[in-house]
This record gives sequence, C-alpha cells and structure tokens, in this order.
Amino acid sequence: MAEFALIETIRRRCAHVRDDVVLGIGDDAAVLAVPPDLELVVCTDTLVAGVHFPLETSAADIGWKSLAVNLSDLAAMGATPAWALLALTLPTADTGFVAGFADGFAALAAEHGVSLIGGDTTSGPLTITVTVHGLIPKGQALRRNGARAGDAVLVSGTLGDAAAALRYRNGADGMSVQSRASLQARLDRPQPRVTLGILLRDFASSCIDISDGLLADLGHVAAASGIGIEIDASRLPASPALLDQVPAEQRPALQLAGGDDYELAFTVAPERIPMLQQAVARESMQITHLGRAVAGSGVRALDSEGRPLDPPRSGWEHFA
Amino acid sequence: MAEFALIETIRRRCAHVRDDVVLGIGDDAAVLAVPPDLELVVCTDTLVAGVHFPLETSAADIGWKSLAVNLSDLAAMGATPAWALLALTLPTADTGFVAGFADGFAALAAEHGVSLIGGDTTSGPLTITVTVHGLIPKGQALRRNGARAGDAVLVSGTLGDAAAALRYRNGADGMSVQSRASLQARLDRPQPRVTLGILLRDFASSCIDISDGLLADLGHVAAASGIGIEIDASRLPASPALLDQVPAEQRPALQLAGGDDYELAFTVAPERIPMLQQAVARESMQITHLGRAVAGSGVRALDSEGRPLDPPRSGWEHFA
Repeated sequence: MAEFALIETIRRRCAHVRDDVVLGIGDDAAVLAVPPDLELVVCTDTLVAGVHFPLETSAADIGWKSLAVNLSDLAAMGATPAWALLALTLPTADTGFVAGFADGFAALAAEHGVSLIGGDTTSGPLTITVTVHGLIPKGQALRRNGARAGDAVLVSGTLGDAAAALRYRNGADGMSVQSRASLQARLDRPQPRVTLGILLRDFASSCIDISDGLLADLGHVAAASGIGIEIDASRLPASPALLDQVPAEQRPALQLAGGDDYELAFTVAPERIPMLQQAVARESMQITHLGRAVAGSGVRALDSEGRPLDPPRSGWEHFA
Repeated sequence: MAEFALIETIRRRCAHVRDDVVLGIGDDAAVLAVPPDLELVVCTDTLVAGVHFPLETSAADIGWKSLAVNLSDLAAMGATPAWALLALTLPTADTGFVAGFADGFAALAAEHGVSLIGGDTTSGPLTITVTVHGLIPKGQALRRNGARAGDAVLVSGTLGDAAAALRYRNGADGMSVQSRASLQARLDRPQPRVTLGILLRDFASSCIDISDGLLADLGHVAAASGIGIEIDASRLPASPALLDQVPAEQRPALQLAGGDDYELAFTVAPERIPMLQQAVARESMQITHLGRAVAGSGVRALDSEGRPLDPPRSGWEHFA
C-alpha cells in the first residue's frame, strides 16, 4: 500500500485546516464553501524536473516552489489564497523525498493559510502539478487588460536574482558564499507577493506576475490592454547580491528576460502613485517606478538617455 | 511561440462558455461565480503515458479519458460538473497530437456542459493532470463514510470490460472485431455516470467510483463507514461482449479487481430500492443489487452458495 503511505505522509505534514473546507482529503473529491460575496480565483501550474528546476534541487525546495509559482498567479489577480490540490508524479515510492517535499510545501502553505484539500499520487517521471484556489470580492480581480496609455509601470522587489543563480549554479569566480546563497534562495524559494497583490486591488489598472521574464510578461499586459510599454532599464531594481556579484553589462539580460522572478509588474494611474507608495511603505514592501504605458504596442527597454537597448532573448518559452 | 500556438489550438476546440465564468483562459488565473446556495466540489487526477493508458492510445481518446476519470469522481459525489483546468506536459510541440487531444477532451466537456477555464502547457514526458469543479446543493454531497450495516450495495452498468480490453489488447483467439471494439471503447472512452450520481443524492448513503477495482474501492467505503461488505459474485453485471468473449472462469478477476470501470458503487437503505429502481428506469440506466453492508470490516466476495471466493489481486496500486 505504498501509495496510501505516501498520501498519509503528505497529509500529516499539511494539516492546516480552514473552516470553509466542508470535506478535505480522503473522498472522491473535496467540498468547499465559497462565501456569497466573493468570487473564486483558480489556476494551475506544472513543474517538470530538469525543466522548471535543476535536478539537484532539494525535495523541500521543490515542494515550496510548486506552491509558490501558483500563489504568485493568485497574487497577480489580487486574490487571497485558500485551497490547494497536489498532483504528484514520482518515479519511485520514495518516502524520504515525499516527506521533504511535503515539508517545503506545508511551510509556504502555512504562511498563507492554505489548506491542502486533495490531489493524486501516480508513478512516472517526476512532475508536479498544483492547482490553487483564492477568493476575492466580486469584480475586484486584477487583470492584464486594464492598462491605459499614460499609466505608470511598476514592479515589486528586485529582478534577475533567480536567473543569476541558474546561470552561476556551478559557481563563479570570486562570488561570495553569502551572495551565492542569497541568489539561490530567490531561485529555490520564491516569495509570492500575496500581500502586495491584495493591496493593489485598490490601485492597479493591470497586474501580472513575472515568471517568463519582465519583457515577455509586460508584453502580455501590452497585448491584452492594447497599449505599448516603455521601461527605463537604468531603473531596474537589483538586489545587493546581484550588484556585487554580476558584472553590470550582464545584468540587463538577467533582469529583463531571465524569468523566475515571481515579482508583480503592474500599472497605476500616475496621480495614485504617492498614496500607493505610502501604503507599500507601511507594509515594508519595495516597489519601483520603471516606466510608462504609451499609445501603440509592444514593450521597449530604453537606456537612461531614452535610446532603445538591444533586445535580449525575451521570455522563457517551452518547446523553443 | 510554440507554446502559445498549442494553447490557441486547445482554446479554439474547447469553446464552451458558461455564464458563471467571469474570466476564462488567458490571464494569470480564472475568475468564477459560485451561487450562494451551492457548494464547490473539486478533484484532480493525473494520467501518465504507459501507466494509465497504453502508449498506442489515440490522442483523442487520451483527451476524453483525462476528463472522464475526473468527471467520474464528481459523479461519485453527486455533483454537477462545471469547470475544468488542463495541465498538459508534452515531449514536443506536436500540434497534431494536441488538436486530437483537445477534440476528445472537448467532446466529453460539451456533453456535460463543462468549460475549460485554464491550464498550463509544459515540455516533458507525456503527463496530463486535469482538475475539475462541480457544484452541489449545500450538504448533499455523497460521501464514502455514510454506509450503515443493513444497507444494500449496488453498482451501475457492467464491470470488467476495460480490464478485458487491456488484457486482450494484442488480440485473443476467436474474439470478434465487434466485441473487441466494444471492450476497447470501455477502456478508452469511459462514460462518467454523472446523471446517476445526481439522482443518487436522494437515495444513496454512500458512493464511490470504481477506478482501482470493485473490491478495492468498496474497501474504501467499508473502511470509511466502519462496516463490512459482502457481495454475491454471481450477480456481477457483465456486458454481452464480456460474456461472449471471456471464459467464465476468467471473468471474476476482471470484474472484481480489474479497475478502470468508472461505474458507481453505492449503498442504499433496502426499503428505498424500489423507488430508486423506478427513477433509474426512467433514465434508462442500469443498476445491479450486488450485496449488503454488514457489521464488521473488509469486503468479501461470495459465490452463489455463500462461500468466499479466493480473493483476486485486489486493486490497482501505484508503486506496487
């Protein structure tokens, strides 16, 4: 009964229970209560070993990340996370791996009050599909299509760390252990910007999370909104580790097109920025005013004198 | 942009739209409206190539089955299907495969009024995870834990066809083309018993769908309900193709433990059976009274004289 032992290993570690879970793990399906004034927000993301994370990634980091990339999508909608399902395909019934995976998954789930309500465990090549559900007041979901010419374009946190960790995963000359660990943590344990997403319900005209890379993801906003976007590459926010360890000329490609950042990119009417900055400061969050939405289409990165940068290869693309 | 072409191929074929989909495919997440008097029912199931279906299975059949196995779980809860998400992992950007897959998926989705509201497309070994959402009036979900000693045990449809198709997939002496096709259709295009599940809300004390095999799945009902179950193996319902083509002595193993049946097994208070039979007859559905719930534990198959059958290997088990 290896399958049931694995399920029990996961269930024991993901014990967080919410009042709105009428029936959780253990039947043919879960039953959930959605309050009448809220809408349901749902998405699913798959991680494949060797594609979405290096094969040497620890089980706990894979567990964390498989939930984090999904919560990041909920954050981009402004939704409050509620429930998750976990479909775990494993080559062997490796209880140690599953325990580590569940510990990482549960650590992030607990931070955001997420209940694991169901899933499936199957044998096959290591692949993880998580489906998450969030809740949001009616009509308040942030979309990609609301940006207007004249809006300011902003981004949370810093960009390029995860891409740098991936690029220098076999080490780089002179990189300190501390900087390396700091970049690696951004790759392995992304922090979904849930609190910011909820706050942005009151400010943003559009929002997206940065998974494929800033230019590619802003490209989705531009296309959905029917606008163009210009960003000032000299304002790209960089972490101390990136500034210290990665040569200046290599940073823009990592920050514009590296992906795996799981920050939020969003647009705001310029007159609302001061009030947004105050709200963000109260929560000790960082946002950076990067550029503007303009009439037209496409996304352009400009240098500090307004000249277009050579475009880096833009955006993670499966089947490339 | 191979990934976006694949998504567009799927989206074009899964065009069914429901009024309760506030925002469908194309943003970071879908937004859905759940009516205030209904509960949400959610489950997820993964199919892995070569594990859950033979490698030679057609793309359209894989698409159909990936949704069918999930709708079968909703049927077992008595829920009305509403929305699905599709996480599709593919070795290559094979548009022909994806078009066929989406055609099969969409054919079943249309039969049950299911909207495809989101998903993910990634590169890797062929693996499909579908998450489905159903709706049900508050408190009416059918569970595994409601069977009481004295209840009758019933099953829908016929058992063993899919297992026979798998066993004789390379042909069997003297099996007619028609019988072979009939068994194969049960393996490749299972019909989730959604209408029956909804009807059973008014009758059943417990319900489960048969995916692992009748004995294994009734074992889950027995354990959850704290009862034992005895079934009369001579009453196991068999299709004409199974009766014609599979020797009598080989049938019980296929019917009791073959799995992949996607019929419903359920318990009903005996005095309610006549009214249930009438309701079922009006819908031209078939159910069979197989046995009874008893004090104790475990599931026993008895022959027509009440002697225990030798137990066949019971239930599909991953990592066995």
